[in-house]
Amino acid sequence: MARFRITLAYDGTDFEGWQIQARSSRKPRTVQGSLEDALARLSGGNRVAVAGAGRTDAGVHALGQVASFELPREISPDRLLEALNGLLPRDVRVLGAHLATPDFHARRSALTKLYRYVLDTDPVQPPTRRRFAGHVPGRLDERAVAEAAASVMGRRDFASLRTAGSDTKTTVRNLIRSEACFDGGTLLYEVEADGFLRQMVRNLVGAFVAVGQGRMSLEALASALEARDRRQWPAPVEARGLTLVGVRYPDSVLT
Amino acid sequence: MARFRITLAYDGTDFEGWQIQARSSRKPRTVQGSLEDALARLSGGNRVAVAGAGRTDAGVHALGQVASFELPREISPDRLLEALNGLLPRDVRVLGAHLATPDFHARRSALTKLYRYVLDTDPVQPPTRRRFAGHVPGRLDERAVAEAAASVMGRRDFASLRTAGSDTKTTVRNLIRSEACFDGGTLLYEVEADGFLRQMVRNLVGAFVAVGQGRMSLEALASALEARDRRQWPAPVEARGLTLVGVRYPDSVLT
Repeated sequence: MARFRITLAYDGTDFEGWQIQARSSRKPRTVQGSLEDALARLSGGNRVAVAGAGRTDAGVHALGQVASFELPREISPDRLLEALNGLLPRDVRVLGAHLATPDFHARRSALTKLYRYVLDTDPVQPPTRRRFAGHVPGRLDERAVAEAAASVMGRRDFASLRTAGSDTKTTVRNLIRSEACFDGGTLLYEVEADGFLRQMVRNLVGAFVAVGQGRMSLEALASALEARDRRQWPAPVEARGLTLVGVRYPDSVLT
Repeated sequence: MARFRITLAYDGTDFEGWQIQARSSRKPRTVQGSLEDALARLSGGNRVAVAGAGRTDAGVHALGQVASFELPREISPDRLLEALNGLLPRDVRVLGAHLATPDFHARRSALTKLYRYVLDTDPVQPPTRRRFAGHVPGRLDERAVAEAAASVMGRRDFASLRTAGSDTKTTVRNLIRSEACFDGGTLLYEVEADGFLRQMVRNLVGAFVAVGQGRMSLEALASALEARDRRQWPAPVEARGLTLVGVRYPDSVLT
């Protein structure tokens, strides 16, 4: 048996997220499903279970998703990359393939994940940006948005952001980076943490937008975070602006 | 009668270019056609002829295409913008609308047009970049590419780049800007000129790639340009990496 770690990029527009939805009667198109189908073909029809670092939702993209799996026989990482890219649909690509240590697990071994959210605020969004940026027309108070982003840094209980469908035991997460900046009328938000609740980044950006529009004060944001009550939290922004940029691992698990 | 100037952005992926193809029996999907259909609906069914600054080819995008037309009755530019965006397909958006001087013509009044070509050279192209960047895997000699780009500056006869279907009287064009730079494994080329032959930018980048790969010397590029013979010129790069960024006009025609 050989264990592999691969880095993936995908355009999430036409996927119903990363994860195979086991109890669904129809078969939704998922990134994990596409990957397992391709690996099954490489393994003579045997099912290969794939773990992904981030379970991205429908419409969310990746530039540096990481996945791990075992194959019954030795194959060089370079050949694996080429074979997978030959079998995968065009909207998923394997960017890198490596042999992994026997205990490597894409999600459990991860130290942190980095997400980026891109939000256009000009009155009309150019169609060339429609797939990879959300759109909320109207100027935001840039300084207030940057302060709101910085205010959620650190180890906190994010129970207020819990959405239906989250099955996590704890809602405490450690945000080691949370930065918003503007490029013209575009808000760029980058957040790195040891883990994320479901729709957490989209819920955070939804609140930053409310602050930037003057609908919510920084104090109200702090209270809403304390409240542990989803109903006090503003609505999330659209999935299409969100990209999983990369995943960090301890050097010890990278061969 | 009121004359208008509008700025347009489009994702060219699903269009067969800007221009209505009059002699075609089927009706290809074109940007000009979509715009004229929308304007006809605003004008009670009367045909409104639209002129575009750049006749972009199939698959070529725009961030700042300019179009001009006349409408039989007065309408405020803001209302025109909203009405058009309500009628146009999602992959074309009107970014701005203005009243124009009676003699304004989007193409004939233009001083220069600026195009950008984006080319990824990493072994695998991320699917998030597939629509708006070409892909030629393999490192290029960055300095050679930059020199090749600079070497075509100025007023020259570009007869060597003439493709079948060009119906221009003269092949002399004045390139006032021609710059290539690299961002990681991505080549960014910007070119501004008083006009462009059909597929001219894609033919230029095709030659720069040949130079960057060491298949063509800078001297050979200069000779190929002198030769006025299309067969000596390298193949063009793909349409999808090309975007019409903007159009410049003399202040006198802008109201």
